[in-house]
Amino acid sequence: MSYAELRARMPALAGKTYFNYGGQGPLPDSSLEAITASWRTIQELGPFTSAVWPFVESQMAAVRSRLAAACGVGPHRIALTENVTSGCVLPLWGLQWQVGDELLISDCEHPGVVAACQELARRDGLSLAVLPVQAISAQTGEEQLEAAVLTSLEQALTPRTRMVVLSHLLWNTGAVMPIARVAERLQGHGRQPWLLVDAAQSMGCIPLAEAAAAADIYAFTGHKWLCGPEGLGGVALSERLLEQAEPTLIGWRSLRHEGSAGSSWHGDARRFEVATSCVPLLAGLASSMELLAAVGSPETRLARIRAGSAQLWQGLQQIPGLETLLQEPPPAGLVSFRLTGNGAPSPEAVVAQLGEQAIWLRSLDDPHCLRACTHITTTAAEVELLLEALAEALA
Amino acid sequence: MSYAELRARMPALAGKTYFNYGGQGPLPDSSLEAITASWRTIQELGPFTSAVWPFVESQMAAVRSRLAAACGVGPHRIALTENVTSGCVLPLWGLQWQVGDELLISDCEHPGVVAACQELARRDGLSLAVLPVQAISAQTGEEQLEAAVLTSLEQALTPRTRMVVLSHLLWNTGAVMPIARVAERLQGHGRQPWLLVDAAQSMGCIPLAEAAAAADIYAFTGHKWLCGPEGLGGVALSERLLEQAEPTLIGWRSLRHEGSAGSSWHGDARRFEVATSCVPLLAGLASSMELLAAVGSPETRLARIRAGSAQLWQGLQQIPGLETLLQEPPPAGLVSFRLTGNGAPSPEAVVAQLGEQAIWLRSLDDPHCLRACTHITTTAAEVELLLEALAEALA
Repeated sequence: MSYAELRARMPALAGKTYFNYGGQGPLPDSSLEAITASWRTIQELGPFTSAVWPFVESQMAAVRSRLAAACGVGPHRIALTENVTSGCVLPLWGLQWQVGDELLISDCEHPGVVAACQELARRDGLSLAVLPVQAISAQTGEEQLEAAVLTSLEQALTPRTRMVVLSHLLWNTGAVMPIARVAERLQGHGRQPWLLVDAAQSMGCIPLAEAAAAADIYAFTGHKWLCGPEGLGGVALSERLLEQAEPTLIGWRSLRHEGSAGSSWHGDARRFEVATSCVPLLAGLASSMELLAAVGSPETRLARIRAGSAQLWQGLQQIPGLETLLQEPPPAGLVSFRLTGNGAPSPEAVVAQLGEQAIWLRSLDDPHCLRACTHITTTAAEVELLLEALAEALA
Repeated sequence: MSYAELRARMPALAGKTYFNYGGQGPLPDSSLEAITASWRTIQELGPFTSAVWPFVESQMAAVRSRLAAACGVGPHRIALTENVTSGCVLPLWGLQWQVGDELLISDCEHPGVVAACQELARRDGLSLAVLPVQAISAQTGEEQLEAAVLTSLEQALTPRTRMVVLSHLLWNTGAVMPIARVAERLQGHGRQPWLLVDAAQSMGCIPLAEAAAAADIYAFTGHKWLCGPEGLGGVALSERLLEQAEPTLIGWRSLRHEGSAGSSWHGDARRFEVATSCVPLLAGLASSMELLAAVGSPETRLARIRAGSAQLWQGLQQIPGLETLLQEPPPAGLVSFRLTGNGAPSPEAVVAQLGEQAIWLRSLDDPHCLRACTHITTTAAEVELLLEALAEALA
């Protein structure tokens, strides 16, 4: 399948110029059809009958295997979740902490995860520390980035560090973090800190098997770069986490024998699954992942994504009154830039102004900037259109 | 709209004889169409644009208001959830406990909720006690039930009781618990114990405004008696719980200013909402609730439900080798019965045997029995068919 063929299957991309893949990806019409077909099958066989369970189980097993393959781990290490937050936060609450343990959180994490860590720290008497990566990722070229992040980590680690929270692909600057190297470093630390990775932006955007297999909690969603339906994601969990963490949000899906409260938890990652969720979404995510795979390997797709983001990044260098956050063409599909001119409009005003032309990008609060994403369905003409509209808005 | 017209809109009811409404309700085709239409609208306006937010917000506000009206509370007291478990367990983890606090849990609660309480007790040093209602509900007529449950409560309360967990409509025996009276009694208790009500079976089956308004946590789902899509439910929270409980599973939807981790929580029940969920399900639940309302008031619908369950209950009295759990026709739509004959097949074997005739009921573990549910779409002919099949299976 060609990029153009995939694009033609996405009604969301008709009639607008779309750069918010990092917020939510467009759903292919065939994926919506797969969801609807799954609902019809469930109604035909069920909805609550012995005849429908094999279908439901096969849907879950298929998506679990697909996600496991993307993460380079066994399916027993994948829990299906409603969103990235559930995947990050639920295993977190099940770990054993000691008063004074330190959570080292990068300065590029999503407010939801940070707020969850703050609340965990408040309740369990943990302390919070900041791992600076925002300035590094903006000032350092790709080749030196890995070393610079590891240096920052080295300076931030203390003997009390018990967890590191770091996104794989930073949602604001768009830089890729060396997760596998960070994991390696943490193994040599006396407390062997847990590594929690927010993979909201990486899943479907960059190859991630090495990082996902190295993290303790690698939480992602299907509704951004994978172009699946909203409300379905997952998390890859390490073997040691599966041995040590207890579930917190517990429902019948957490239990080995769902009919009995005396049951033990599932031995595998399913102990972090909860209760009834929307089964038909599984067919939609499977369909979208299949379409992406039909277009090319993760490496091929990343090359396409980077061609778009490089075109955008280079074009942005030519527009007075703005500066890209990254000093080099982006390693993935997120392109963020600040407005620097005297009397420049706010990022929010630019979003509104371009929105009137059906060109969609978003503003971010920290750093206060604009972000445009290019995916495999982005065309060179779209990037040109955005550049022209930005130049006009800032003129 | 007549019952027959509603029934005709439910593809799940074609070609089978269905008594598992308490497991999952059939989805009307117009609700599936509403879901699909919502997805198309989101793709057309969004999926992540300023143009789509008003639509998303209106969908959430509409369902929140509808559920609030059903619960007889203000919309600020309703949090939308993925399932009953989330609604029960998330507020629970945010309450403040003292070592030694006692959780008094009825002996008719769902294993998921019980397991969650066990884990909470293990972590926070709480103790667990059992509130016996199963035998009472089976042995006591409807008129005496309220007094008997209150007596059982009186005997089980201790000065350390800090929470009572009790379903509104017991999922196994099918009896209705006097939630408002229990709440009243707890107000007079020195510790003012929290009242957590599993409303999985009551929402959509019986009028519930009095109970929902009286409980601290009244958690329900849309996919059982409301005939909405799986993966969307809600919880009504008391004012005092909103004042005192902190969210545990925290994401951007919990925060007043989603862009900032320093943000305070939402002041209302939204603090217990998490992050991205499947927005199109809202349209499906709204559609199903509208259809039910078009058929009749909650009171009218309960009368219809009870006509079916009474017919079934009375027919069951005529079949040798089984006995109903309740001594009188059921107060709602759940009809449970034990197999008592010598050499009787197991409940599971009966489920399988009737399943081969496309007659669907389920078995329960505690007590080990069979359960058949009648809803407003159940016909007298279906009940007859079930009775004949049971008589034959036990002959």
